[in-house]
Amino acid sequence: MNLGPVDRRQFLAAGGTAFICTLAGQRISADKPADVSQLAGGLEVPPKVAAAQSSGGAQATLAATSGARREYWIAAEERKWDIVPTGTDEMLNQQVPGRTTFKAYTYRQYQSGFSSPVNNGKVPGPLIQADVGETVVVHFRNKLKSPVTIHPHGIRYDVEMDGAYKGEYTDPGGFVQRGQDFTYVWEATEGTQGLWLYHDHGPLDPVPLYKGLFGPLIVRDPDQPRPDVEFFLFMHAFEPVATSLRRQFWCINGRAYAGNAPTLRAKVGQRVAFHVISLDNYFHTFHVHGHRWTDPDGTVIDNKTMGPGDSMTFEFVEDNPGRWLYHCHVFSHLHGGMTGWYIVE
Amino acid sequence: MNLGPVDRRQFLAAGGTAFICTLAGQRISADKPADVSQLAGGLEVPPKVAAAQSSGGAQATLAATSGARREYWIAAEERKWDIVPTGTDEMLNQQVPGRTTFKAYTYRQYQSGFSSPVNNGKVPGPLIQADVGETVVVHFRNKLKSPVTIHPHGIRYDVEMDGAYKGEYTDPGGFVQRGQDFTYVWEATEGTQGLWLYHDHGPLDPVPLYKGLFGPLIVRDPDQPRPDVEFFLFMHAFEPVATSLRRQFWCINGRAYAGNAPTLRAKVGQRVAFHVISLDNYFHTFHVHGHRWTDPDGTVIDNKTMGPGDSMTFEFVEDNPGRWLYHCHVFSHLHGGMTGWYIVE
Amino acid sequence: MNLGPVDRRQFLAAGGTAFICTLAGQRISADKPADVSQLAGGLEVPPKVAAAQSSGGAQATLAATSGARREYWIAAEERKWDIVPTGTDEMLNQQVPGRTTFKAYTYRQYQSGFSSPVNNGKVPGPLIQADVGETVVVHFRNKLKSPVTIHPHGIRYDVEMDGAYKGEYTDPGGFVQRGQDFTYVWEATEGTQGLWLYHDHGPLDPVPLYKGLFGPLIVRDPDQPRPDVEFFLFMHAFEPVATSLRRQFWCINGRAYAGNAPTLRAKVGQRVAFHVISLDNYFHTFHVHGHRWTDPDGTVIDNKTMGPGDSMTFEFVEDNPGRWLYHCHVFSHLHGGMTGWYIVE
Repeated sequence: MNLGPVDRRQFLAAGGTAFICTLAGQRISADKPADVSQLAGGLEVPPKVAAAQSSGGAQATLAATSGARREYWIAAEERKWDIVPTGTDEMLNQQVPGRTTFKAYTYRQYQSGFSSPVNNGKVPGPLIQADVGETVVVHFRNKLKSPVTIHPHGIRYDVEMDGAYKGEYTDPGGFVQRGQDFTYVWEATEGTQGLWLYHDHGPLDPVPLYKGLFGPLIVRDPDQPRPDVEFFLFMHAFEPVATSLRRQFWCINGRAYAGNAPTLRAKVGQRVAFHVISLDNYFHTFHVHGHRWTDPDGTVIDNKTMGPGDSMTFEFVEDNPGRWLYHCHVFSHLHGGMTGWYIVE
Repeated sequence: MNLGPVDRRQFLAAGGTAFICTLAGQRISADKPADVSQLAGGLEVPPKVAAAQSSGGAQATLAATSGARREYWIAAEERKWDIVPTGTDEMLNQQVPGRTTFKAYTYRQYQSGFSSPVNNGKVPGPLIQADVGETVVVHFRNKLKSPVTIHPHGIRYDVEMDGAYKGEYTDPGGFVQRGQDFTYVWEATEGTQGLWLYHDHGPLDPVPLYKGLFGPLIVRDPDQPRPDVEFFLFMHAFEPVATSLRRQFWCINGRAYAGNAPTLRAKVGQRVAFHVISLDNYFHTFHVHGHRWTDPDGTVIDNKTMGPGDSMTFEFVEDNPGRWLYHCHVFSHLHGGMTGWYIVE
Repeated sequence: MNLGPVDRRQFLAAGGTAFICTLAGQRISADKPADVSQLAGGLEVPPKVAAAQSSGGAQATLAATSGARREYWIAAEERKWDIVPTGTDEMLNQQVPGRTTFKAYTYRQYQSGFSSPVNNGKVPGPLIQADVGETVVVHFRNKLKSPVTIHPHGIRYDVEMDGAYKGEYTDPGGFVQRGQDFTYVWEATEGTQGLWLYHDHGPLDPVPLYKGLFGPLIVRDPDQPRPDVEFFLFMHAFEPVATSLRRQFWCINGRAYAGNAPTLRAKVGQRVAFHVISLDNYFHTFHVHGHRWTDPDGTVIDNKTMGPGDSMTFEFVEDNPGRWLYHCHVFSHLHGGMTGWYIVE
């Protein structure tokens, strides 16, 4: 891309943490565009991955699972993504200047057998869900130029299904190469109920994740009533390392600023569930105007601190109509885009 | 003001997040003084606010409320404020060099009908309290040169009483102009018990808040016994954007360093309540020496992480005499002033 | 030391907070080596400390305690410490370039009466443990060139046993000088059960702590079953101010990167306890792959936010063999070394 260089001082002044990791001998910084394909060029195939390939590919342990299956077909793909499609911050009623579009990575959902895409790839990826007792099978196809994976939180899985790169100890699921498939099998055993997440944890972590490779995962208790309406929200930053844009965007579900971040809608009387996940290099709080909820510790709150990898669900019965804001209460994050409308009729 | 420029590198080196927001087309940074009056000059009056003015002003929905009323008369005013009145850090027994006084914004409490001030304006503003079942009525007068508001957490209110600027969707309570009044009506309904806060959430957010426009709000359960002594404490930073001073101060209730931050006092045998609120761009922990408390989750702790907008109450029966420190356990915050004495007789 | 200067911009770019404190009139920054001996040279002996010395030294209130005693002999000593002894990051299977060895401060455990050291000093210091009802007696000897202390969290102690420097109000236990001894007496009274920590809180805080003066403290309920295996883990940064090295290392128990940070081992069927403490200038989350636990608030989680001074214990019955990663989920911390192996057979 032919953008000018990102201004490091501006980036740090915006609260950025520049240094992220060292990959292929290069220091990767959040404020400098990184060329993932080039980084991938220097990677060696780990021994267990090479052995599995020569013996005909990694076999998923599908036979060993019991209970009903939930099958997903998901491909990692690149797509153009606009962080601020309206070009406007509706909270302050002002324009958001500069470029806001980049080539994101997405987990894109397909119909059975990858026959056709369900829709365009999105940030975050599709909701993966299961009831307790079910087995989740994710048929994963890597259409990117670099190795990526799917690593889940919370649900039960054997170590081969960890989806994490571990150097010489890497299993095939932790290094899914360009053009290859891997089938992840995870089990929603008793005790894994809750809101979780999944994300890339491959050899170029966290760059592909920073470009959009994450999504929500939920294990439900089938004996519990489902809410009438529910929202899955990721608080995360899109940073220059991943976007090649000149600034940092504070996002909810890949979009920044009210009118771009999800506009949530509910009706008075509905049971509403918010499923909130935090996943970047920073700490956030989640706050909703005009509402409050009971924390699992029993206190009534309307604001909660969350760090990278944390997830929480809260529910309430909607009783307060109007146009509300939900946002991160870190002021520079709020004003950098981490806010949206919640409209109750 | 005729102060020299704040040194950005020093500011960032102290852990500051410089970029906060874009207001009136200007990038506002925590490390650069901002002229609030000038920023206010560029603001348009939102359509609903203009319509209410032309029809004789916004009417509070007082008629609709039931239960006993708790009425407050509060004006936003500017006043000179000294962050380190003793000039000394008593923990390290050393002087705090440099200027420590600036023009703060305060929520100043008045007697009924704004007949006379209760006292000088303070940081934080007055405690707003109600029992469950009561209605809080805040008669608010803006004596500042820029529009500000009062936005509450936790308590129940209709969307018109949100006190938040929302661009074109702003209600009159979200844009209280210079010299104007607005009456906020909030209801302490069942389920809103707890420690909350209030703060400016107007069109220049967060600059007026950074200058001191915040305060504690509590909804009490009248069936619960009151503590013998209680403390309301805000952990927050005073930063150059708000103070025009050359450095960042880490404060508790507007003051920095032991002997300036509140010196708390209790006696052995008393039931003591700490009401702690975190409200700036950073994350903190609250720690007390020689004491511990039971967290709502049942664990016994003496240190707790809090993010912007979080609030917590803990209580214990005092049993340990002496001169203790309470402080944020982030070392640079502690040593930047976020500590005070707790003296038990 | 003859190292080149640390590059401040690199340090800040890595997420460092440079300014920590002002000691002896000097601004101490995390990114610049500090000479502790020189800083100590300017310190005055606080009046109560001087008085105790002239009257024959501080007397511990040993006579006043009841219950069984747990006695420890601990000396503060300097020792050479390698943060990355293997020189390798096993997660990414790549070398860690540059120097990784420095002169750490350690709390080193001795046999009764300081007759002989139990082992080399370590980061963190030895586990101090007691059952409810017992008294902990720590015979502390300062073999460093500067005054340091031991300040405990959570356990019950009189104010003279606080181990905290308080300027003119400092007790002898808050200023233990070079070559001197002090005996700390703390009581594991009912209600102090839990995982805690201890650390230096002397007049040069936090520099000696940053160099390694911290350790775990646990008060156990003797009626609760002990886990089959347990791990005590500190998440903390080693920074240039303390190490004179050119970069920041994100550590667990004084080591950085998988294969250097503790390699934890357990067996299927064992009851496993993780005791996790966070203690630096930053916020972290603790995450384990392939496992989850019940938070004290009743939710099942596999990732938790922790700030400086926070501690948590979680337990589970091991049921998932393999080579797992545990790590801080802040990506730049993970990739800066804050990860290790957890191997289940």
